[in-house]
Amino acid sequence: MIASLTSNFTMAGYCKKVEINCDMGEGFGKWKMGPDEDLMKLMDYANIACGFHAGDPTTMIKTIRLAKEHGVKIGAHPGLQDLFGFGRRKMEIHPDDMYAMILYQVGALKAMLDAEGVPLNHIKPHGELFFYMQRDLEIMDTVLRACSIFKVPVFGSKGTEHQGAMCEKYGLVFVEEAYTDLQYNKHKKLLPASESKMATVEDIYARTMSIGLEDEVEDNDGVKFTVGFNGQPFMFCIHSDMPTALENAKICRKGVHEINSMRGWK
Amino acid sequence: MIASLTSNFTMAGYCKKVEINCDMGEGFGKWKMGPDEDLMKLMDYANIACGFHAGDPTTMIKTIRLAKEHGVKIGAHPGLQDLFGFGRRKMEIHPDDMYAMILYQVGALKAMLDAEGVPLNHIKPHGELFFYMQRDLEIMDTVLRACSIFKVPVFGSKGTEHQGAMCEKYGLVFVEEAYTDLQYNKHKKLLPASESKMATVEDIYARTMSIGLEDEVEDNDGVKFTVGFNGQPFMFCIHSDMPTALENAKICRKGVHEINSMRGWK
Amino acid sequence: MIASLTSNFTMAGYCKKVEINCDMGEGFGKWKMGPDEDLMKLMDYANIACGFHAGDPTTMIKTIRLAKEHGVKIGAHPGLQDLFGFGRRKMEIHPDDMYAMILYQVGALKAMLDAEGVPLNHIKPHGELFFYMQRDLEIMDTVLRACSIFKVPVFGSKGTEHQGAMCEKYGLVFVEEAYTDLQYNKHKKLLPASESKMATVEDIYARTMSIGLEDEVEDNDGVKFTVGFNGQPFMFCIHSDMPTALENAKICRKGVHEINSMRGWK
Amino acid sequence: MIASLTSNFTMAGYCKKVEINCDMGEGFGKWKMGPDEDLMKLMDYANIACGFHAGDPTTMIKTIRLAKEHGVKIGAHPGLQDLFGFGRRKMEIHPDDMYAMILYQVGALKAMLDAEGVPLNHIKPHGELFFYMQRDLEIMDTVLRACSIFKVPVFGSKGTEHQGAMCEKYGLVFVEEAYTDLQYNKHKKLLPASESKMATVEDIYARTMSIGLEDEVEDNDGVKFTVGFNGQPFMFCIHSDMPTALENAKICRKGVHEINSMRGWK
Repeated sequence: MIASLTSNFTMAGYCKKVEINCDMGEGFGKWKMGPDEDLMKLMDYANIACGFHAGDPTTMIKTIRLAKEHGVKIGAHPGLQDLFGFGRRKMEIHPDDMYAMILYQVGALKAMLDAEGVPLNHIKPHGELFFYMQRDLEIMDTVLRACSIFKVPVFGSKGTEHQGAMCEKYGLVFVEEAYTDLQYNKHKKLLPASESKMATVEDIYARTMSIGLEDEVEDNDGVKFTVGFNGQPFMFCIHSDMPTALENAKICRKGVHEINSMRGWK
Repeated sequence: MIASLTSNFTMAGYCKKVEINCDMGEGFGKWKMGPDEDLMKLMDYANIACGFHAGDPTTMIKTIRLAKEHGVKIGAHPGLQDLFGFGRRKMEIHPDDMYAMILYQVGALKAMLDAEGVPLNHIKPHGELFFYMQRDLEIMDTVLRACSIFKVPVFGSKGTEHQGAMCEKYGLVFVEEAYTDLQYNKHKKLLPASESKMATVEDIYARTMSIGLEDEVEDNDGVKFTVGFNGQPFMFCIHSDMPTALENAKICRKGVHEINSMRGWK
Repeated sequence: MIASLTSNFTMAGYCKKVEINCDMGEGFGKWKMGPDEDLMKLMDYANIACGFHAGDPTTMIKTIRLAKEHGVKIGAHPGLQDLFGFGRRKMEIHPDDMYAMILYQVGALKAMLDAEGVPLNHIKPHGELFFYMQRDLEIMDTVLRACSIFKVPVFGSKGTEHQGAMCEKYGLVFVEEAYTDLQYNKHKKLLPASESKMATVEDIYARTMSIGLEDEVEDNDGVKFTVGFNGQPFMFCIHSDMPTALENAKICRKGVHEINSMRGWK
Repeated sequence: MIASLTSNFTMAGYCKKVEINCDMGEGFGKWKMGPDEDLMKLMDYANIACGFHAGDPTTMIKTIRLAKEHGVKIGAHPGLQDLFGFGRRKMEIHPDDMYAMILYQVGALKAMLDAEGVPLNHIKPHGELFFYMQRDLEIMDTVLRACSIFKVPVFGSKGTEHQGAMCEKYGLVFVEEAYTDLQYNKHKKLLPASESKMATVEDIYARTMSIGLEDEVEDNDGVKFTVGFNGQPFMFCIHSDMPTALENAKICRKGVHEINSMRGWK
């Protein structure tokens, strides 16, 4: 399912080579988070925070302009309404509230993109919002139903078996991402930042090449598993809020160049 | 200027008769504000709060559905980011922040309207946001520039001489409203709720008829002045957050029926 | 345990008769919640919201002055940081954050009480904060440890078996409340407002008398159970955010007068 | 007036030598602001943000513990309720709201200090709150009235002529600070951060020595003026949110050592 969706996506003109996206615009007011100015130069896609877990209207529009300047495609990065917890804490949210929150955040970004004359490329649920979708089928249904209003692909890491089917229900293309700055557990699922061991630059490079060339990566017990991209181009995601974000992005970009070059993807 | 804009608006198919709009969806979470369910039946247009001075995503979508059910046209009602002060306190806002805030709020509502399949009809700045625009030309320019992205008319009370020119600059139609639940000062400008004497139902009716039939109303010193609608149809606005909102709306609606009937507007 | 604590409390001079407390000051900015002005006349104790789930600094100080005027004793009513959900939604909170949040809220109220020259009488955890304490022993420990800084009793409904022991650990007196406007489940535990059937005025009176005279009340299946006050005076709690709050309070007060009179408590 | 208050303060055992205070705990949730861990080692007093313009309950308690560990005295640093604008934007606040806000913030910090067994040493109004006090006599009166509840000195830069008289009215000691990382205007008043030229390390040192040894500093036009410490010990303030905060603090500390040594203050 997910694999075939990825293939469809590739065939639809997306992901013809390995690419990188990055969560960005995660400052708030006077507080900065990632080194967005430098990171932007290394990215293919920017997922821009929409003011609920991070970001504010002014930061959003600045980040849009920065991405536009570097020819980086832009997606909405909605999250739970939790600035204090950076959208990484579990919260109980009624599906009706969730539906409205997704429309609110993505709509807010969409208007800014309209003002700047650039299209909304995709939607990528942030942190605990993504994990909530995986734990709670009604929440997944609700979030994807809200996403379907915008008629763009949804980005995310490998989710439960339901993710593919739900995306199909709403006519959504799901683009599965691989992570190199977080760990996977033995069920091939991404670990939250709080449970994941900090990656070194060497880890990032090794994982990039292993996923890109062998479709494999080690889980948090050191056991290799097959990621499932089946020799197709795919997407890496880099977090901008990690202390080593810029180094991570540089080494990942280096690896991606090598992979695309060896595979002849361009 | 404003008069001619109003005329253009009428000619464009709007305001062919006297109509009423109302600020709505001004609850927040568990807190209610106006009697929206009852008020909606009496309105032609609903200005829906967008979560900055009042409202929240869930209340917004509920209010949209309520308006849709009653065939009421929907506008965005953006305000200053001040839930505690209900958007009625003066705050210093950088024009860049203001531009982003307007796009954010209106965009958020617009996405919900898209989801519900109803168009955005207009934008109406709330409370202190409107007064800020009148005091500060750069803020007025910024707000109208943001509004122009959405290509819909702007509603508001009679502003400074610059309002008409600025609207023309951005290709915006400005629809001037008359108020019957707030007072005007001797400069024909609307007084903030905090400075305005509470109107009785009799006041509302008297003002409705006087504005509708004679194009005149008394200011807060009891001196009559010409409103300036020049015998053209126009728009009344009712506040839903006043304790007597429902009575105010009923008597205003009664007056509007009488005016349209006497004038032959329909 | 809890019973003996209640007895100790009675012996320490508290609860010499049946009394009533009420959650108050639950407005926010321009939004009102309960009819505090009228309710205050009917209460012995006011639990004042501290700005996290409801309330704001100005509302807090107004409610303190209102209580002072009526000779009503004042407790802090801290809650989860969730204005939108009125502190009734589940949220994952780190114990370190929880500890700091309780100190923050109660300390804020305490300074206002100092300014008004009235003592802090007790602390009563609000809504989901109380339920979280019952579900999670570490959270209960944390909250009670924070409460112990203020050296006042803690009010709450019958909790798990751990509640008594933890209070003893921190030298806290726990005052167990009976509710008549919410239902109990078959485990004698209070149901959240969202799961509880709305009580009529007749329900309130019947439960008041049944608890007061027979130490019994019906659970949500209609089965009577023993509450456990063992013929000692105790505390009723009334919610001010229910639509019928004032009627509920009046009938409960009537019942309490009758009980105290029949029992000879004063 | 202010001079004599400073003298009284010195006589009361404070400011027997030149000392340094620093605004701290200005992160929020996952967002950091200053290098508090390193700065704390260089300070005599920490002014801790109270959650309105910066800070959150957890950051507050962590900063208290850090200060305690280094023997640094602790003051409350209340500000306007404006996280987005870092408490540096003008906002219209009713004096009743202002009074309640100050009690709320300082009370919240005070409870944490009680829990940690350290005293509240002083109160220092942040950013626009201080400027608002200087512009609006009713606000100054209100803020100082709220401060007087806590019976501790108030720290701040040289204010209007009213500042001394008002402090006397409320029995408050006012400790006047000198700044080396912001500029003064020709009226000897501190400029807001947004209007002040960024200081180099050389500027900081030159100003430190000039104020400490000659009671003089250059205003933003390069004209020297007398600060007014009259050869008495006084207080420097360093901002932790400037990019060069740590370097600023180190060079200021070096200068302060030299001044105290030359003057024989200890």
